[in-house]
Amino acid sequence: MNKTINLNADLGESFGAWTMGEDEALLQVVRSANVACGFHAGDPVVMRHTVRTALAAGVSLGAHPAYPDLQGFGRRPMKMAPAELEAMVIYQVGALAGMAAAEGGRVTHVKPHGALNNQACEDAALADAVARAVKAIDPALILLAPVLSELYFAAERAGLKVAGEVFADRAYTDKGTLVPRGQPGAVIHDHDELVTHVLRMLDAGGVVSQSGKHLPTAMDSICVHGDTLGAVESARHLRSELEARGWTIVALPEVVEGR
Amino acid sequence: MNKTINLNADLGESFGAWTMGEDEALLQVVRSANVACGFHAGDPVVMRHTVRTALAAGVSLGAHPAYPDLQGFGRRPMKMAPAELEAMVIYQVGALAGMAAAEGGRVTHVKPHGALNNQACEDAALADAVARAVKAIDPALILLAPVLSELYFAAERAGLKVAGEVFADRAYTDKGTLVPRGQPGAVIHDHDELVTHVLRMLDAGGVVSQSGKHLPTAMDSICVHGDTLGAVESARHLRSELEARGWTIVALPEVVEGR
Amino acid sequence: MNKTINLNADLGESFGAWTMGEDEALLQVVRSANVACGFHAGDPVVMRHTVRTALAAGVSLGAHPAYPDLQGFGRRPMKMAPAELEAMVIYQVGALAGMAAAEGGRVTHVKPHGALNNQACEDAALADAVARAVKAIDPALILLAPVLSELYFAAERAGLKVAGEVFADRAYTDKGTLVPRGQPGAVIHDHDELVTHVLRMLDAGGVVSQSGKHLPTAMDSICVHGDTLGAVESARHLRSELEARGWTIVALPEVVEGR
Amino acid sequence: MNKTINLNADLGESFGAWTMGEDEALLQVVRSANVACGFHAGDPVVMRHTVRTALAAGVSLGAHPAYPDLQGFGRRPMKMAPAELEAMVIYQVGALAGMAAAEGGRVTHVKPHGALNNQACEDAALADAVARAVKAIDPALILLAPVLSELYFAAERAGLKVAGEVFADRAYTDKGTLVPRGQPGAVIHDHDELVTHVLRMLDAGGVVSQSGKHLPTAMDSICVHGDTLGAVESARHLRSELEARGWTIVALPEVVEGR
Repeated sequence: MNKTINLNADLGESFGAWTMGEDEALLQVVRSANVACGFHAGDPVVMRHTVRTALAAGVSLGAHPAYPDLQGFGRRPMKMAPAELEAMVIYQVGALAGMAAAEGGRVTHVKPHGALNNQACEDAALADAVARAVKAIDPALILLAPVLSELYFAAERAGLKVAGEVFADRAYTDKGTLVPRGQPGAVIHDHDELVTHVLRMLDAGGVVSQSGKHLPTAMDSICVHGDTLGAVESARHLRSELEARGWTIVALPEVVEGR
Repeated sequence: MNKTINLNADLGESFGAWTMGEDEALLQVVRSANVACGFHAGDPVVMRHTVRTALAAGVSLGAHPAYPDLQGFGRRPMKMAPAELEAMVIYQVGALAGMAAAEGGRVTHVKPHGALNNQACEDAALADAVARAVKAIDPALILLAPVLSELYFAAERAGLKVAGEVFADRAYTDKGTLVPRGQPGAVIHDHDELVTHVLRMLDAGGVVSQSGKHLPTAMDSICVHGDTLGAVESARHLRSELEARGWTIVALPEVVEGR
Repeated sequence: MNKTINLNADLGESFGAWTMGEDEALLQVVRSANVACGFHAGDPVVMRHTVRTALAAGVSLGAHPAYPDLQGFGRRPMKMAPAELEAMVIYQVGALAGMAAAEGGRVTHVKPHGALNNQACEDAALADAVARAVKAIDPALILLAPVLSELYFAAERAGLKVAGEVFADRAYTDKGTLVPRGQPGAVIHDHDELVTHVLRMLDAGGVVSQSGKHLPTAMDSICVHGDTLGAVESARHLRSELEARGWTIVALPEVVEGR
Repeated sequence: MNKTINLNADLGESFGAWTMGEDEALLQVVRSANVACGFHAGDPVVMRHTVRTALAAGVSLGAHPAYPDLQGFGRRPMKMAPAELEAMVIYQVGALAGMAAAEGGRVTHVKPHGALNNQACEDAALADAVARAVKAIDPALILLAPVLSELYFAAERAGLKVAGEVFADRAYTDKGTLVPRGQPGAVIHDHDELVTHVLRMLDAGGVVSQSGKHLPTAMDSICVHGDTLGAVESARHLRSELEARGWTIVALPEVVEGR
């Protein structure tokens, strides 16, 4: 059994005079960063700093494109034509790729943010538009998508490399979707319980739902957070528990190429 | 004598529901396009369309980065730290490079827009920041700068390929700077007079000022406009007069590599 | 029979260096203007100019608040919390009210724009949020809403003054909603046919659908356009035909107070 | 001797998902708030919350208009035409006035923010444009300006009510301008030293420079901060020391009307 797995987190979500997240600490825990590209968070200065520190920490770079909605942090659903969406994604991935080039690195994956990600996980046409954009700008890019989502399937259809992620702190329904926030047990706050949840899925080789149902699927990456109290500590704990059980935490390209 | 010269113009300056310029007609006249990158004009959809049509017309692509000032069309002077400026330029060039890649082409030059260009032509420190940004993202890029400007000299200092441009419709002072708008004869409206002005400079191998003073300098490109009444007609006339005198109008990389 | 009616149009939809619409000509035709407030179009300079020229023409002022979506011209559906929506509407109405005060006038109505208007016409909760915002900032404001829409009913529920509008160039379904663009006859292009359509509704005292069904309703205002070819000419023709039949074209407050 | 004085601070400088400042604590210390209007910070939701909580705390409301520069927090100098500047100020004051109306209050003063304030303190033409804007939207508004500044004089020239402010934590030159940050003693960090500085000026009836020079001037308000470590504690200490010496801390309109 190949016991390599990736840990990813959203980074670079400060903007101008406003700071957010504990990026420095997270960069010591995760191996891949989804970097905000200026539409929901991040600005050119923040992006460059994030790219530089991620590269220095050996963390692989992903673009984290979003709807153009700084005030809503990219979390408000929008509806735009597929051609607009494609161009919007290309723009953001290109901007981050430029920043990576300026720092001697390169972008290796793309993960949509917030409402764009949520909608692309449920709407196949939207997901196809995202996949087309990624493929158009660079067919070697990995699309990082939630397992069992329309976005994951769209990446496969497009012939893209795709990496499947599960959320360390979220419970799953029997369909493999996230239990909506607000429902009992939707978010796993306890650090040990979170570790148990992740290990159960890794052992099962797929999603294990809240009711215990097994949904076999490739899992390449575990998404952790750094923007809430205790989140970094929780991620650090998860990493050390995984390592204690023989898992190696690697950058996303290594997982994808190691399959 | 090498009678090749480039014609360049600003393109892709529409935004959302608003259109500007006669891009389609201009693409039949110029050989290089400075494409707005979303900060003063242009949006991802406009950028992609501009890139696609420019490539189809065999027109070489340049990024046209600007201050973040959509309302002021990038024409309002701003003052920011060099590190901010650098990151801002990298972001915009990267975004356009992504768009070019998505359309199977590539960006071959950078020309700052509006107030950023004006300030970089006079302020060596600002010009150095622009040159550093261009070099950081891709040292093979050509920096297209007004002849005899601080920006031109900064590109040379940085070891970048640099192309010098003159403005077809603007008179020059004895120092080689543009006669400020509002002064008599600053802007040349008559189409034949404009041709005479350009030919005089090409024959002289340098800027010829309003008073007749010669300022020898390499000239690689002539900037024409498409956003005012009759501008495209004037540019077309200039091109045909140049060709009638044996000049070949080529894309910017050909001029720079042909020297 | 009270033969007074209002004509309204969207104005002030230029932005920065970009112009849109034939505002000057329209101000000679309509009696009420829905002025863009900077979120989908308009900027402070455009707003001030629009307010000044509208007041000079005796045209009453309405705020035309929209989603924060300059690139999409406020036409892209968004989803935000009611509290966000309320605050967003208050902000825009306040900004225009300030501009009106600076020019010695005042805002007398509010008409949501684009996707916000469309969604508020179908979603009662959204419509209630708009009505609450209008009432909060100034309970004397008139809410200008399509006849038979959820927005119209929400204004009534809120105890606001409400004015019902019909669209001069759009056909109606039997439910009183607009025939979707793209369906046969949805948009009425012929100037005479448009006049006939409007007169038929005025005579019937309500909407007359494409199939001929009558839907009685108060009609206070007719919405005309100025952003497409021939639109101003069509509006001018409509006005003169209405006047020839004894209709007096008045500002919105006069219609509402004259009932 | 009239021992009433105002304390003011900038509030409502959060934006979307990003928070800044300790507004809740500051509202217990100051009597007047300069509320961000969305151009450098603040969004409609933040503005409404700030207005509501300030009114509940009996704190008077001021608009805090800025350059359109969210990324730069309004601290980057810009250059725009006076007509643009005027319209931009009116827009922001109007937006906040709308928010105040919606919460049953009203805006009683205006204080420009950041680079706009700094430039207006030194450039009489710019200062006049700000004063014209304030007067245009509501001639009853108080312009809160640094003592001995061009902005203060412009307000006087315009016939506006003007309130002069000194900065509690900043040293002054012999000309009455702020000692530039970076020079020794420019910023007063020690809480007791800050109190001594303020009391010395109040006793002297004017600015007391770093070298001890007295510059007599009306002083209506003391500006304190809430965005740095210990700032609120320092402000609270200043207030209690002032009260212990018989000073009454009142809202800005009371100071101005009490003269």
